[in-house]
Amino acid sequence: MLPLLAPSDPGWFERVRDALPTLLIDHTHLEKRAASTALAMIFRYTGIPGLARELSEVVREEMAHFSRMLDVLDSRGVQLRQLDPAPYAARLAGQVRRNPQTGLLDRLLVAALIEARSCERFGELGQRLEDEELASLYTELRREEARHYALYIGMARRVFSSEEVRRRLEQLAEVEWEALQASTGAPRLHSF
Amino acid sequence: MLPLLAPSDPGWFERVRDALPTLLIDHTHLEKRAASTALAMIFRYTGIPGLARELSEVVREEMAHFSRMLDVLDSRGVQLRQLDPAPYAARLAGQVRRNPQTGLLDRLLVAALIEARSCERFGELGQRLEDEELASLYTELRREEARHYALYIGMARRVFSSEEVRRRLEQLAEVEWEALQASTGAPRLHSF
Repeated sequence: MLPLLAPSDPGWFERVRDALPTLLIDHTHLEKRAASTALAMIFRYTGIPGLARELSEVVREEMAHFSRMLDVLDSRGVQLRQLDPAPYAARLAGQVRRNPQTGLLDRLLVAALIEARSCERFGELGQRLEDEELASLYTELRREEARHYALYIGMARRVFSSEEVRRRLEQLAEVEWEALQASTGAPRLHSF
Repeated sequence: MLPLLAPSDPGWFERVRDALPTLLIDHTHLEKRAASTALAMIFRYTGIPGLARELSEVVREEMAHFSRMLDVLDSRGVQLRQLDPAPYAARLAGQVRRNPQTGLLDRLLVAALIEARSCERFGELGQRLEDEELASLYTELRREEARHYALYIGMARRVFSSEEVRRRLEQLAEVEWEALQASTGAPRLHSF
């Protein structure tokens, strides 16, 4: 169902499992950035009917996840600190074309792909983490991110033809895969 | 209870009542900007304990109001379009000092004052609009903006001394009043 070109490298979980506090901080920032991305789209595309309402739902839900992650950090005595994200998302954002129309298509599909990858990785965390509380949190978040992925794809299909969406999604899915492979730095939700 | 220097000019309602669709559009954008302001503060002050959680609640609620206003526009056949806001908020934002500490105090108190003025004007709309649906919407929103005002003041008091908060709030309340008097252009939620 997910539009990803390929599943994550099986070694990813092994590489992040020992850096769990860092991963939780990275994830907290990710929810904040996801809300910000959706809100920025509301500002940019206010005039396109229907978009603003669905995006505002995404903002609300990402903010709820953010708040929930603050609780998770608190309950584990982990201090939220600044953290460089994996280069992954910036590389994908670099694919957004400047033209307002095609730029909208790109923004929606890039957001969809990031949600899809998060969804896949939350699933991995939900299945493999031994910490039951976190495992159940990630199983739940996996479902919600899957819905966000579907929301973004749905918005794209409402404004653009299925063929346009399919073609551009295929191209961007390749870039997404390359961006993930290239994110070989510190352990992150979107590192290799 | 509100920290405003003075109540609105009684003529404001008369000046906006005939521009209701414009006022509704202006209000819709205002909710979007209020969410954006709170989210920007989360980005800027992530490390200050407790702030991010309360601000994320503000973001969620402003987005819920935004979505609700989209419904109001829809049900009345009013198209959301770009609209220059009253100069009011920009003038208040110009009071934010560059120093990170005092800048935080200023941002919280400016946000509190804007919420307080919105609250006062929503109350006016709730009492005086003949349209019952809108009157009841504004009566309800008045309560929620009052809560946001209290949230912002509460955040300021958690980080700064009562004396610092009181003194700066007094100064900014004067600027708020001047900014409102100076917003003599098109009818807006924050016009004279």
